[in-house]
Amino acid sequence: MFQVLAKASPALGPQVLVWAQTMASHQLRVAPPGALLKPLSVPNRLLLGAGPSNMAPRVQAAGRLQVIGVMHKEIFQVMDEIKQGIQYVFQTTNALTLAVSGPGHCALETALMNLLEPGDSFLVGANGMWGLRAVDIGERIGAHVHPMIKEPGGYYTLQEVEEGLAHHKPVLLFLTHGESSTGVLQPLDGYGELCHRYQCLLLVDAVASLGGAPLYMDQQGIDVLYSGSQKVLNSPPGTALLSFSNRAKHKVYTRKTKPVSFFMDVTLLANFWGCDDKPRTYHHTIPVTGLYSLRESLALMVEEGLEVSWRRHHEAMAYLHGRLQGLGLQLFVRDPATRLPTVTTVVVPSGYNWRDIVDYIMDSFSIEIMGGLGPSAGKVLRIGLLGCNASRENVDRLTEALKEALQHCSRNRL
Amino acid sequence: MFQVLAKASPALGPQVLVWAQTMASHQLRVAPPGALLKPLSVPNRLLLGAGPSNMAPRVQAAGRLQVIGVMHKEIFQVMDEIKQGIQYVFQTTNALTLAVSGPGHCALETALMNLLEPGDSFLVGANGMWGLRAVDIGERIGAHVHPMIKEPGGYYTLQEVEEGLAHHKPVLLFLTHGESSTGVLQPLDGYGELCHRYQCLLLVDAVASLGGAPLYMDQQGIDVLYSGSQKVLNSPPGTALLSFSNRAKHKVYTRKTKPVSFFMDVTLLANFWGCDDKPRTYHHTIPVTGLYSLRESLALMVEEGLEVSWRRHHEAMAYLHGRLQGLGLQLFVRDPATRLPTVTTVVVPSGYNWRDIVDYIMDSFSIEIMGGLGPSAGKVLRIGLLGCNASRENVDRLTEALKEALQHCSRNRL
Ligand SMILES: Cc1ncc(COP(=O)(O)O)c(C=O)c1O
Ligand SMILES: Cc1ncc(COP(=O)(O)O)c(C=O)c1O
Repeated sequence: MFQVLAKASPALGPQVLVWAQTMASHQLRVAPPGALLKPLSVPNRLLLGAGPSNMAPRVQAAGRLQVIGVMHKEIFQVMDEIKQGIQYVFQTTNALTLAVSGPGHCALETALMNLLEPGDSFLVGANGMWGLRAVDIGERIGAHVHPMIKEPGGYYTLQEVEEGLAHHKPVLLFLTHGESSTGVLQPLDGYGELCHRYQCLLLVDAVASLGGAPLYMDQQGIDVLYSGSQKVLNSPPGTALLSFSNRAKHKVYTRKTKPVSFFMDVTLLANFWGCDDKPRTYHHTIPVTGLYSLRESLALMVEEGLEVSWRRHHEAMAYLHGRLQGLGLQLFVRDPATRLPTVTTVVVPSGYNWRDIVDYIMDSFSIEIMGGLGPSAGKVLRIGLLGCNASRENVDRLTEALKEALQHCSRNRL
Repeated sequence: MFQVLAKASPALGPQVLVWAQTMASHQLRVAPPGALLKPLSVPNRLLLGAGPSNMAPRVQAAGRLQVIGVMHKEIFQVMDEIKQGIQYVFQTTNALTLAVSGPGHCALETALMNLLEPGDSFLVGANGMWGLRAVDIGERIGAHVHPMIKEPGGYYTLQEVEEGLAHHKPVLLFLTHGESSTGVLQPLDGYGELCHRYQCLLLVDAVASLGGAPLYMDQQGIDVLYSGSQKVLNSPPGTALLSFSNRAKHKVYTRKTKPVSFFMDVTLLANFWGCDDKPRTYHHTIPVTGLYSLRESLALMVEEGLEVSWRRHHEAMAYLHGRLQGLGLQLFVRDPATRLPTVTTVVVPSGYNWRDIVDYIMDSFSIEIMGGLGPSAGKVLRIGLLGCNASRENVDRLTEALKEALQHCSRNRL
């Protein structure tokens, strides 16, 4: 090899190349791992947990397409279509609308990193896992965080929010639309208006609800909205949806300090996503094939129509609830008006260990359902009917599996 | 639909469901975008820029596999195999080795967010784009950043580094192994040892060099090393490789403050990746299919063998350099000893506009090459031979294309 190089670079002379020198003075000491000599094998599962869900066939097909460059006009076109798709599923005309190159947590953190500056007052609806995450991140950023702690299963009334706003004078309120750890659907009508009366911005997590429950970003006065790719959209995890109202954009563009993260700096992302008037500049390498998939997911939602998708999820939920009650199981969320259509929480039946049930269904039926998460851990089973998985057939399959699990799992093993 | 629900939840009574109430008082105002009713179409390109590169066929096949849950034992197995694969390609036995759920920038930022605290002294080799990025991020974190600015095309000698260490007493030094914006291969032998003599940690960017040039994390005393998936590994963009030495781990685990980012908190990522002794806890939804692809990329590298891969890249580079010189083109990096094998920089031939050449080759041959980036913008053309793209056939295809471009592109259009 050395010879080849010497031939090709006659200018080289006797000079020792850095790479050759490096190789000469070291040896491989970490052996090639044997596990990687075996083929990759992945089971086929029906994912009826709180997410990720199964990919829709058309989305899965998109994962096969070859990568193109991140500054090619064809990827800009895909990004533009994704923007339009997000505007549709969010029901917004916000120019500052884009997909972040990461999971739901990355979208939440992008929102907080850009909206909050150290010392800002931040009010958080903490009625489950996701509010607690917002609290954690807000504190890391150095905001004054005011969590409104609530037992899992509850939601926030306008009155409770107004008390928080009046008392803490926050610049930002966080609410979770679809609280997937507890199974609660937070009402959103009137909350945006209320926040704006108190000079506060409204940030909403719709990771688990988007496409499964009605949501109208502009009409509901939501300032920042985000969602994930791997729930109702049936895309692979790795991208998330994010949009800023003009009010929120103003707060971001008039910050006194730069956001601590470069990767999540929304002004830079906005430029790369063609949301400002300047020519697009490379910011980071976007997940090209992940964006193909997301584009296809959004196309599927456009073809089905948002309202039809909402209806389908509600019908599947209603059918599921009926079947669960038929098995003698009890729904965790007391108030039927606020049950989340996409993720249903069931009280762990008395005398059972939740893990036995989950494991039995996985091992015997290759179906995933989940236990609780964070504040709901140990208290509930979680069943997700997300996107293409929200069908009567799947509910029937699961009901059979649950029935058998309840018969086989020994009681009183706690 | 309302009826279905009422039937299924007899407990409901006259109560109005939140979702139904929401739908009743709003209407869809943002129409479904027509662009998403058309099928997705993606061109097939030969990607000979600085990245992303084309996916290897086996990697592409992995993109088709169905998603599984992020707490399933099979994904833990894939993650464990990825860890072993990274340990092999990095040549390290570090326990704290994992893939981040984002691009190369996310790995860089994860490293800096965890290694630096406000006020820490941070020394940066800034001889191109990537050092400048490290400067930017370091400043956002509130470190005292000391950039050693150098003209594009140069590298850092041990003596220069020692002067910086002695003068600034940094806790961390950043160097770019494969400077893809300038085409320089930074020597690394002796730099780790030197840093440690000054109580400084060494952080190295190997995004563009990993698999294409010799690198021995442990033997070279590198404390934190990261790389990307979309260069020599031929995976889709969306994951990045990261490893911490025990020394670096100690700095992270004895921080006085939490890292500002939750998403990039290495202590939490380490737990999720099974790098500590505690049971794994969900941290965020990892890019499941992206990890399948990365696993396959690492398997390909294990099958080929690191040294063979290094040789193949050096041979392809040598062949390319010969062909370029045959066209009368001049290499940008003067010192042949420090030319980066994976990304070659060529001086823009006098009288030509670099963009004309790049566009001509793209439009007429569907081959991507790139102009400069950051400090090298306008000065160079960049040609990448990355992973499965590093072959004589591709060099021949490109040479033909370049030859024609030089004939057709009008001179003196600057
Ligand atoms: C409501 C809600 N918010 C946020 C998240 C976090 O998303 P991710 O796991 O993609 O980071 C989830 C995911 O499970 C969720 O259900
Ligand atoms: C040397 C080097 N470092 C860092 C990066 C940044 O990686 P990404 O674009 O994946 O964020 C690149 C990518 O082009 C690179 O070549």
